[in-house]
Order: sequence, then structure tokens, then C-alpha cells
Amino acid sequence: MLESLTIPEIDPELGKQVQNAIDTKTKPPGSLGRMERLALQMALAQNTPSPSADPAHLLIFAGDHGLVGDGVSAWPQEVTAQMVQNFLGGGAAANVFARTNQVELSVFDAGVTGDLPDHPSLTRAGIRKGTLSALRGDALTAEEVARALSFGVASADAAIDGGARVIALGEMGIGNTSSASLLAHAVDGIDLSVLAGPGAGLDAHGVARKLAILKDCASRRSGRLDPLDALAAFGGLEICAMAGAAIGAAARRAIVLVDGFIASAAAMIVLRARPEIRPFICFAHRSHEPGHRVILESLDADPLLDLELRLGEGTGALLAVPLLRASCAMLAEMATFESAGVSEKD
Amino acid sequence: MLESLTIPEIDPELGKQVQNAIDTKTKPPGSLGRMERLALQMALAQNTPSPSADPAHLLIFAGDHGLVGDGVSAWPQEVTAQMVQNFLGGGAAANVFARTNQVELSVFDAGVTGDLPDHPSLTRAGIRKGTLSALRGDALTAEEVARALSFGVASADAAIDGGARVIALGEMGIGNTSSASLLAHAVDGIDLSVLAGPGAGLDAHGVARKLAILKDCASRRSGRLDPLDALAAFGGLEICAMAGAAIGAAARRAIVLVDGFIASAAAMIVLRARPEIRPFICFAHRSHEPGHRVILESLDADPLLDLELRLGEGTGALLAVPLLRASCAMLAEMATFESAGVSEKD
Repeated sequence: MLESLTIPEIDPELGKQVQNAIDTKTKPPGSLGRMERLALQMALAQNTPSPSADPAHLLIFAGDHGLVGDGVSAWPQEVTAQMVQNFLGGGAAANVFARTNQVELSVFDAGVTGDLPDHPSLTRAGIRKGTLSALRGDALTAEEVARALSFGVASADAAIDGGARVIALGEMGIGNTSSASLLAHAVDGIDLSVLAGPGAGLDAHGVARKLAILKDCASRRSGRLDPLDALAAFGGLEICAMAGAAIGAAARRAIVLVDGFIASAAAMIVLRARPEIRPFICFAHRSHEPGHRVILESLDADPLLDLELRLGEGTGALLAVPLLRASCAMLAEMATFESAGVSEKD
Repeated sequence: MLESLTIPEIDPELGKQVQNAIDTKTKPPGSLGRMERLALQMALAQNTPSPSADPAHLLIFAGDHGLVGDGVSAWPQEVTAQMVQNFLGGGAAANVFARTNQVELSVFDAGVTGDLPDHPSLTRAGIRKGTLSALRGDALTAEEVARALSFGVASADAAIDGGARVIALGEMGIGNTSSASLLAHAVDGIDLSVLAGPGAGLDAHGVARKLAILKDCASRRSGRLDPLDALAAFGGLEICAMAGAAIGAAARRAIVLVDGFIASAAAMIVLRARPEIRPFICFAHRSHEPGHRVILESLDADPLLDLELRLGEGTGALLAVPLLRASCAMLAEMATFESAGVSEKD
């Protein structure tokens, strides 16, 4: 699945045309900084001089992690299922930001351990309930990884069939900063000691214990791993699904809006397997989780926002959506020097 | 005018109540970072546990500068009036971002040299057309400064009478990075060589010439100046008006959302004259104009956004409005651990 979908090409002629349009707007050239580059990226990804951020759709993938039983998190595993119910009830931060910023939200059970009720906004992968502990063996089989990737592709496809032009990726999974850290270590060789952080709230003692456990996991499968192998070794199901959703979205020219630490680990998997997906990926924010900075540097990514968020759920991605919208509006609506009768620079 | 309005006090009991409300929301404590501090600031400024970012209203103050005749800008002076007409026609970046982010926009002629047509969205100060060159004498008289401050207060009052709970401050004025630099130098003692930058597009040679002119201006009135005296010495009319609008907004418990380099120089004037206004001021973004970083540091301000903007017009403030809105929605709408039945940390 990581290899099978065709990723569309970027048109350099369109790039010149859009850059020229940006440069004739009534402002000093380049003076809208990141907003200009964002407009250009969206135009190239969507292959149109009139890109759109609407509709934007947040996909939240939830999954549980066997490593939680070994003590990597400050929170009990049952919180994953409870938070999924909170998403379905509309009370989580992601729901609030999605409503405020007019973003559609869907929830995906990629592999939650607890029981979840049927709900029109919930789609189930039905692969397995939680991963195995990566301390004692591979978290997932190769077949489970492939199925979770396909589930992600199908999730993005459904949103795009519904009109979505931006696919934002969020997650919920107690223990998933551990999987994300192990993936970034295995795929890009980043030192685990800079990746292992407080996650949802470990103290210094807890971080030290987490790091020791992660080192034990990593020693079981030492050296660089290829992306698919890393997903099997360290999970999780929601990370596989996010990776699949990113590929599925890029294949259909939707912008992939990446949230924080976990979503960026999924993006790393995708970018190492399919580097041609890079033009479709927009990094929304830099998380307060210390390892996120290092993952972003490894991906040469400079995200739009830096608000010290460390919640996940797609909250950072949701806060970036108005910037995408404004950059598209700049392209569509701003006057040119000629149309507005404004003198140019001496 | 800088001294006469009463600034309301902040209620520490309300602060504790709001912080407690934030901490019971379904998220790890502190995990929404800057958004939590923003919600708290808005609650304290507006003196309510249910603050609101709506309606938000951008006031754009325009004015011309005598120093432009001495060669401090890459653009001809007539562009100020032309851009005011672009604002009135709805084609400038500020118009586009205001529409996209549902912010009301009003334009104020604080002292433009060119002729401007009557327009329902344009209010005129009628003080004078442009400042005198600060190279040869004071840019404004003390009386002109007082009148421009009052014009700003009245502008904010009118917006707040119309319901505004957030007053965003923007400006247009060819040459006004020079005034802003001279003010920050005179009031906070910042070195002119770190303040003099490319503005709307000077090359290295132009920046060197600008710096030499600014040094000549500063030598005419050397040493630290008090805020009112600095405004008279260096202008401009739109900066006086922005300072007045900030005071007027704070006096009525509206949030003052400060844009970039020029608006921050106006905020510096206000904060040095009336430090008790600080809780009402929110810095929207860090400009790409190099001196802005130094002004922000001098004010101990850490803005919400860093998007390499250097356009002015309030564009950075407009892009920050959705963050204010989302922080208020978090306070109003997010479930608590108890209401959502989510387990707390071990």
C-alpha cells in the first residue's frame, strides 16, 4: 500500500504563473511571507491557480498500545476509548476548534482496546484491539500494517468523495508518543534520548523509565528499519492509518495538514517511503513535546504555528486551517497594482 | 490624553476561577499552551469567565511623513493615499483577510497628504496633511499630538459602541518604519542600527541611507524622551492615533490586538506612559522587519504568530483573530473530565 498508489506530479509552469500572480498583488513583493509560500503550495498541490481550503476535514484515528502495560504513560489505557466517546459527544478540544474553524470531523477506531458504541461519526477498522507490546515482539504483523494503511487510504478517500480539499490528520492513543519515538529512531536514526519526552504528562522519573523501556524495545530491532518494517515492529494502528490517509489524500491532490508529534512520525514514514508526496504535506505546528523539533528538523519542515500545544487530536492542525483559507483568499481576491491604480516602488 | 482615561483593574479572583475552569477541561493540564494563556488574558481583560473575540474590528490609521521627502522609503508618498483607496475598494490584503476571518474594518485618515474621496468607511482626523520632516524640526506640535491621540480614542470608542470586543490596530503610511524606529530609540533607548531595516523594500544601500538620516534626526533630540515628547519629535499622526485607540480600547475592557513593527512602536508609547494597560494588549505576530524582534523583546512580548509578514495594514492582527476566537470557544464549550466521564492521570 505504501508503494501502490500513483502520486500526481507538480506542474512547474503553473508554479511560475501563480508566483507571478502573487507578485502583482498590491503589496511589496514577498511581504506576506509564509502566506505567499502557502498559497503557492496549495495551488501546486491542487493543480489550480485557484486553490481552496474548503471543505477541510479532520480525520482523528484512535488506537491503543501494548506498551502502556509496561508503564510508558502517565494515563490509564481506558482513556483512549473515553476520549473517543468525548469526540463523538462533541466535547473535546478538537470538536471545539473544528466547530470554531468550520472543519468537518470524523473519528476512526483504528484499534482501540475498550468497547465503543455505534455512532454515525465513527468508522471501525476491525483489525485488532490494540497492538502487542513492542518490548516482547513486533507490535503488529505485516498483514495488520497493510490493513491499517488501507483503512487510512479509504478514510481519506471517503472524505475526499465528500468534497474535502484539505485532509487534516489527528490522533488519540494513550502511549502513542512511545510508538512515534521508536519509529523516528528506527527510520531516521534520531537518538531516543531526544525523542522520549513527557508525552501527556510524565514527570522526570517517568520520562527516564519511558526512555529505558524504549531503548529495550529498540535493541530488539536495532539498526535502521525500512518504513513498513518499522510500523510492524513498533506500531501503532492509528499511526499506520494516518500514514495511509496521507498517501490517499496526496494521490487525489488534497492538502495533507499534519498535526503534532505523532502525526509527524506518520509523515516521516510516508516521506521516507514516498518522497514525492512532500509537495502535498503542510506541517501545521511545532509541538511543545521536545522531540517534535528534532523530527521536524529531520524532515526539513518549518511548521506554520508554534503555540506550545502538546495535546494531539489534530488541535494544532485545526488552528492552522484559517491560515490556509486566508492564503487562498489572497490569491483569489487581492487587487493588483494595475487594477487598484497603485504606484509601484521607485 | 495619555494620562486622563481610567484603566480598569484586573480581578485576581476571576483569574483563579478561570484557571481552574481551564484545568478541569478534558486535556492534560497546560497542554493547550498559548491558547490557555490567551483565554485567561481575554477573560481578565473583559472581566468575565466567558470572554468573546466577536465582534472583532480592525482600525487602519493612515498618515504621511515629511521624512519621505528626505529619502527614507523605496516607495513614493502618493502610495499612502492610493492604498487608502484600495482599502475603501476592498482589494488590499487587509480587506481580504478581514473578510475571510469575519472582522469588521474601518479606515481612518489620521493625516494623509493626498486627496481622498468621501466614503462611508473613511473617517478623517482633519488635523494636518502629513508631518513635517523630523530632520529639520519636530514632526508635530504638542497640540497636534494631543488631537491625534484623541482621534484614536474616539475611533476605538465608536467601534466599541458598535459592539467590538477586540480592537485590532493596523496602519498605512509610506515612511512610517522611520518614525517607529525613532520612537523606539527615543523611548526605550534601542540602537537605531538594529531598528533601521528595509521597511517596504529598501536595498542595503537604501537601508544605510535611511540609518544615516535617522541618526541625524535623533541627534536633534538626543537622550531618552518621554512618550508624548517623542511623538511630537518624530510623529507620525497615524502612530499617535493608534496609541490613542489602544488607550481608548483598554479603558473599555476591549482586547487591543497589536499588528507589526509600527503598531508595536505605538504600543511601546502606550506601555511606557500607562503600564497598567499591559493586560489588555495582545501582540499578534512577529514581523520579518528585523527591528520588530528587538522592540518585542524590549516590551517582554511574545507574539502569537511568526509568519515572516512585513506588510502592516493589520494583516498579522487579522490572521491572529481565529486564535482568539478558538481560545474563547475552548473556555465556553470544552467538556470537563467529570462531564465527559474521562479518567484522570494516574
